[in-house]
Amino acid sequence: MPHLAIQYTPNLESKTDMTALCKKLANTITGITDETGKHIFPTGGTRVLAYPAAHFAVADSSRDMAFIYLHFRVMKGRSSAMLLKSGELLSKATHEHFAPILASKDPYLSITFQIDESTEVFDSRHGTIAPLFLK
Amino acid sequence: MPHLAIQYTPNLESKTDMTALCKKLANTITGITDETGKHIFPTGGTRVLAYPAAHFAVADSSRDMAFIYLHFRVMKGRSSAMLLKSGELLSKATHEHFAPILASKDPYLSITFQIDESTEVFDSRHGTIAPLFLK
Amino acid sequence: MPHLAIQYTPNLESKTDMTALCKKLANTITGITDETGKHIFPTGGTRVLAYPAAHFAVADSSRDMAFIYLHFRVMKGRSSAMLLKSGELLSKATHEHFAPILASKDPYLSITFQIDESTEVFDSRHGTIAPLFLK
Repeated sequence: MPHLAIQYTPNLESKTDMTALCKKLANTITGITDETGKHIFPTGGTRVLAYPAAHFAVADSSRDMAFIYLHFRVMKGRSSAMLLKSGELLSKATHEHFAPILASKDPYLSITFQIDESTEVFDSRHGTIAPLFLK
Repeated sequence: MPHLAIQYTPNLESKTDMTALCKKLANTITGITDETGKHIFPTGGTRVLAYPAAHFAVADSSRDMAFIYLHFRVMKGRSSAMLLKSGELLSKATHEHFAPILASKDPYLSITFQIDESTEVFDSRHGTIAPLFLK
Repeated sequence: MPHLAIQYTPNLESKTDMTALCKKLANTITGITDETGKHIFPTGGTRVLAYPAAHFAVADSSRDMAFIYLHFRVMKGRSSAMLLKSGELLSKATHEHFAPILASKDPYLSITFQIDESTEVFDSRHGTIAPLFLK
């Protein structure tokens, strides 16, 4: 399940490499381990999808401002400590990626990262990726 | 309400007809009936929207891998049996649509289908479609 | 946080100015006040992002029909009265924007507006916009 959907304003598109961010975040997700060293997210279920908006408004539109909202949906069952660790590692990786833009303020940028646990009432998975990563 | 939002990796775009999938799923939604033969979703409220990501990463990015995540949001009030039936019919229709890609593994593909009940604290609807489908 | 994500069918793209709608809705959000005249949403955290689908189906696809789904995610803590007021003001602004299309039925159009309170288990914010709007 670990599903990271990224919504962002299109004025970031030419200023940063979003594919690189997606790969960095996917690597971060699959590398997170618990106190016993066990990976807490399945590699084969991990995906990061990034979407620039076609139209947007940020704050009062008074200057060039960008927004990126990262929404990470995970299945229930992980401890609060593991959710906190995941959020901190993924936020940190995102902040590092955007350090040049945060420093230059070209454009002004806000980054929000949230984790939600899935509240699904039905779930089905099917496909040819998971078997590649079974041990 | 029945709102089906599809997020998928753009490497599927040239390999399949996503508009055909949207229509197939909309037809499936509007055709679902309860034990008395009554349709459980309103035709006029049914919509399916599909979004290829601009950037993505799947698993460890080690080969050509695609993901499609179908998220179906419905209002509260349907029985567990009806939700299960809906999920199974929609998953089945999706799996059938992708059978050639699942068989060829070009690309490797994972399909996740989830249903969530709406948790809205405010809801308004307005428009000219619903009246077309009132009996 | 106030995060307004708009999903719509692409047959609206040439019929209306979605950037204008985004700005109108952002202005509406930042202008909402409580009974004491205090603004209930932070200007620096407000963003509106609009996404036309690449593929879609509405109802039975029997004629030219459009859908717009506005999903407003806010943090917990506002009163029911304030959520109701917010929903009504934002719905009204949206309905006004689309009045010509609702009148012409070119295309037929449904508008759904929902507010959800955030259910996050992790939240981080970082950036250079919020400081611009601190008093």
